[in-house]
Amino acid sequence: MTAGRRTRLRADERRAQLVSLGVEMLATRTLDELSVEDLAEQAGISRGLLFHYFRNKAEFHLEVVRAAATDLLERTRPDAEWPVEQALARSLAAYVDYVTANRLGYLALVRGAVSGDQDVRAVFDATRTTLTDRVLASLSELDVPVEPITRLAVRGWVAFTEEVTVSWLGAPESAVDREGLLALLVRGLPVLVFGAAVWTPQ
Amino acid sequence: MTAGRRTRLRADERRAQLVSLGVEMLATRTLDELSVEDLAEQAGISRGLLFHYFRNKAEFHLEVVRAAATDLLERTRPDAEWPVEQALARSLAAYVDYVTANRLGYLALVRGAVSGDQDVRAVFDATRTTLTDRVLASLSELDVPVEPITRLAVRGWVAFTEEVTVSWLGAPESAVDREGLLALLVRGLPVLVFGAAVWTPQ
Repeated sequence: MTAGRRTRLRADERRAQLVSLGVEMLATRTLDELSVEDLAEQAGISRGLLFHYFRNKAEFHLEVVRAAATDLLERTRPDAEWPVEQALARSLAAYVDYVTANRLGYLALVRGAVSGDQDVRAVFDATRTTLTDRVLASLSELDVPVEPITRLAVRGWVAFTEEVTVSWLGAPESAVDREGLLALLVRGLPVLVFGAAVWTPQ
Repeated sequence: MTAGRRTRLRADERRAQLVSLGVEMLATRTLDELSVEDLAEQAGISRGLLFHYFRNKAEFHLEVVRAAATDLLERTRPDAEWPVEQALARSLAAYVDYVTANRLGYLALVRGAVSGDQDVRAVFDATRTTLTDRVLASLSELDVPVEPITRLAVRGWVAFTEEVTVSWLGAPESAVDREGLLALLVRGLPVLVFGAAVWTPQ
């Protein structure tokens, strides 16, 4: 792509392109390490021009996190063509593969280690809520009654899935393989929800 | 306590007293809201004198978080006089009650919403690791084999417990009672560990 073509991109296209580049860069660095200087260099534009598209570093980071969350949710959307159980298992496999491919950025998001930014946390919480709602919708399709305690159990299972996946990424490669990890995650949901159903208070 | 007695306190005692006061104040405000000004006022000393004990606000916050984590771990230590299963159930009840009593401070810690501070996160991660190790020690006592996947499952269960408890605190009071919550948490552990054992990869 030449400088001539580049300048003809519309501002919103250019902005989206910069955000995509930022998401790609998260694969190999944390959000904290995602500097405006590096991005400008990768995009072949000046630091000053970058601030034409984003008010400040916080706004750029927030847009990158939003895009990454949207990306994660799209790649893990359950496929309605499959029976519910298989759709869930496939969605979990997509989740593990996405997180594996975008390790540092995902670690940064989940651990919350690099951001005291309330807006970034809000994106993360909304993502967790969407994942919870998807599972609850799947349970409804399976005629599992969704009580308040079921919602708690599923939200907890989403946190379980995040923590197990992040710990797995940080553990020695040979300890547990991808299939073992997926089995633990898939198996975890019904046992937790079943536990919840058994123990619903009177 | 008079100003006369107060000045006779040794510096390290005074420091510990200020940290304790900070932990108490976390019951009703977030870490972010725990200002040095409020603390000085509550302690009846000047803001300037406070910085005689702590280099800056970050150091004070870190000490408060460390003290809160130590407090949580002490209150939830499994009692060796009880059989392992009951000791675990009692420990979980102590955890839920501690979190309920120190709601805002605990929410702030778990959500990581208010701190980009790496040291604060490290305290949080170390606390989670201690809780995981305690459960693994209990499993060993019960002759449950502790495989790498068991460690993942238990670490995930700790995250499950945190998320479920925090969500429960934020939910309408009548939805799930304390007993229902405890049952969900207690029930979750063996089923996850059983799931992990069943699915240990070959």
